[in-house]
Amino acid sequence: MNIAILAIGNEVLCGKITNTNSAFIAREIEKIGGQVVYQQVVCDDEAQIVKGLKQAYTYADHVITIGGLGPTVDDLSRHGVAQYFEEALVFDEEIYKGIKAYFDKILRSMPANNKRQAYIFETGTVIPNPNGTAPGLALHKNKQTVFLLPGPPNELEPMVYDYILPYIQERVGDGQISRSYRLYGIGESFAEARIIGLYDQYPRLNIAPYCSVTYTDYVVSTCQSNEEELNAFEKDFLVLMKDYHIGNQLTQLSEEVIALLKEKKLTLSTAESCTGGLLASELVNVAGASEVFLEGFVTYSNEAKTKRLGVDTKLLAEDGAVSEAVAKAMSEGLKLTTGTDVAIGITGIAGPDGGTETKPVGLTYISVTIKNETFVKHYIFYGNREKIRQRAMTQALFLLYHNIKTF
Amino acid sequence: MNIAILAIGNEVLCGKITNTNSAFIAREIEKIGGQVVYQQVVCDDEAQIVKGLKQAYTYADHVITIGGLGPTVDDLSRHGVAQYFEEALVFDEEIYKGIKAYFDKILRSMPANNKRQAYIFETGTVIPNPNGTAPGLALHKNKQTVFLLPGPPNELEPMVYDYILPYIQERVGDGQISRSYRLYGIGESFAEARIIGLYDQYPRLNIAPYCSVTYTDYVVSTCQSNEEELNAFEKDFLVLMKDYHIGNQLTQLSEEVIALLKEKKLTLSTAESCTGGLLASELVNVAGASEVFLEGFVTYSNEAKTKRLGVDTKLLAEDGAVSEAVAKAMSEGLKLTTGTDVAIGITGIAGPDGGTETKPVGLTYISVTIKNETFVKHYIFYGNREKIRQRAMTQALFLLYHNIKTF
Repeated sequence: MNIAILAIGNEVLCGKITNTNSAFIAREIEKIGGQVVYQQVVCDDEAQIVKGLKQAYTYADHVITIGGLGPTVDDLSRHGVAQYFEEALVFDEEIYKGIKAYFDKILRSMPANNKRQAYIFETGTVIPNPNGTAPGLALHKNKQTVFLLPGPPNELEPMVYDYILPYIQERVGDGQISRSYRLYGIGESFAEARIIGLYDQYPRLNIAPYCSVTYTDYVVSTCQSNEEELNAFEKDFLVLMKDYHIGNQLTQLSEEVIALLKEKKLTLSTAESCTGGLLASELVNVAGASEVFLEGFVTYSNEAKTKRLGVDTKLLAEDGAVSEAVAKAMSEGLKLTTGTDVAIGITGIAGPDGGTETKPVGLTYISVTIKNETFVKHYIFYGNREKIRQRAMTQALFLLYHNIKTF
Repeated sequence: MNIAILAIGNEVLCGKITNTNSAFIAREIEKIGGQVVYQQVVCDDEAQIVKGLKQAYTYADHVITIGGLGPTVDDLSRHGVAQYFEEALVFDEEIYKGIKAYFDKILRSMPANNKRQAYIFETGTVIPNPNGTAPGLALHKNKQTVFLLPGPPNELEPMVYDYILPYIQERVGDGQISRSYRLYGIGESFAEARIIGLYDQYPRLNIAPYCSVTYTDYVVSTCQSNEEELNAFEKDFLVLMKDYHIGNQLTQLSEEVIALLKEKKLTLSTAESCTGGLLASELVNVAGASEVFLEGFVTYSNEAKTKRLGVDTKLLAEDGAVSEAVAKAMSEGLKLTTGTDVAIGITGIAGPDGGTETKPVGLTYISVTIKNETFVKHYIFYGNREKIRQRAMTQALFLLYHNIKTF
């Protein structure tokens, strides 16, 4: 099934927002055997939307529009689509009540212009939006289908999963199967070198790596009839990647760590210098983390390292705050003061300043104390300050996962 | 000057590569007063490239193509453009020597198919590529101009800076001016309602709001000759938004807070429950934060609140961990233990569980103690767990900013 995507919005057109939505939709559709054959971005203008739709329908019978469903006068997707299809827009009392209820729930009065969002196509369908006020819309007319989705990714994504993908899946049949594997602690180039032989060994599989700052995903898809080949591939892949594979595209490493702590009935505390609370925050973002994650310290100054964790001032002066000895003293001191089963200490140079010949920007020590044993590892992360801190945080989760799992 | 962008490539179309190049080019062009009025992505197919060019030229006389200049048979941008313009492709000995020299430099032998990259337009211009083998191409014919750029961002970006932007700048003159204003503590709908009169009052300005989870930006642009009108608008806008306006698109609220602390020579510490280190982490992300931000506590459990901050167990039992009294005790206890000039405590219900009729999910208390005064405010943030925590963190920065500024 061929699909065209029409993003609507000056913010995307002028580059203020990168069009990640189109890439997301295209990827998800490809996984289930559909195909995005055309993408386009037009501005917030009714005539341009109509022109864009005309063009898009020269490529595919199904068009997904993104954006332009908000409450302001700039939001013209409904009107553009209505004009193209010569379809009436009608006020829907139920949706209006839903929007009002949304504002009631957050204890705010509804601005008058949000009423615009209660207009729907006379012969169309409504796509529920669990995370916002703008419902999505679908319309099928004259052998052409259009889906209107809102622009914010947290609103758009569930609507793609819950409505668009099932719709496409039903029409392409159960033709395609796909599995995803998330790797931590290994970059795309090294991952590719490790599995390069599998590409030739399994020619009927579509093997695609996607890398982010902190992980690499492999998405492998094929026809239903090749399922056995996919199973064989999975076996080989997981042997090659056994040190790096944790979860899939839908899971977070922090969730895996919290689940593992619960399973093993262990408690955790954190002491962070360069990551400055990023690790604690990532753990707290997992609902129910409070059962196992008890507290954290952001010991950013040397004084705090001594006062809170009992790190020897001599050690700080002699080895420096970013050193194996200080990292070890942080996690061991932390464990003493908090009494948790697991304690982790992180100290590093996030940059851009503070690096030297022997201690470059990116140098980070991570120390994990479990029961009475301590493991320290050091890394040199690359990137800007934010990326170095993100990579240090992810690597800390990765170390926690392995140390807890194998303890 | 209007410009259209045509990205060429199956990898962009299927979402394997996110189209960051188009956003980059559009942003840079807008900064110098040009305007990208249309974006499109087509697949690696000569006929589709010709069709795409035809469409793009209905929007603008200048088209920038991205990708499809590589050495493989899939790379068809030169051929598509040549066909559209009825232009001959000719082999260029100098470019061929340059490509060979590039391979010599990296100590590899040149694959035969790289010879394709030495073909250029008979009446066109070559855009040098300092970072790769594929030169860019430019062609002006029949009042239409096309620029062909390679896809890898590290090759494309210098070519945009060195060739495309100077070309555009020369032709637009100093035509456009633009200013941006970043608002915190007010949502897009409410901001719009507040300034709706300014749209009519200043008809020659292009006023555009952009909202994110934590702030709303207004970008206002116009011709150079309307600068006085823009000045008048700014005066009115800043009066209406005086409680919300901090910085612009290029500044972070955390940077403003750190700068303000430095200016007033004050130190800061943090105690976080529901935000779990997010505030500390945001502050630490500012290079040089260590001068004023000394340490943070993630007192996620009740025990930690008592042990680290001296929050009375009776208070926790009677008022509950999420209450005005506990927030106050957190920041005041924190100030006592750390001795910083400013201390902030945050306690709230991030959800999805834990909400009640009287204390719903999203309820958050933020307490700021400066010198000997304490200010507590409460909020009900909406969204999922992550968004509630982000909004609480941003609001904490907003409160810090105002309390420090007016102290």
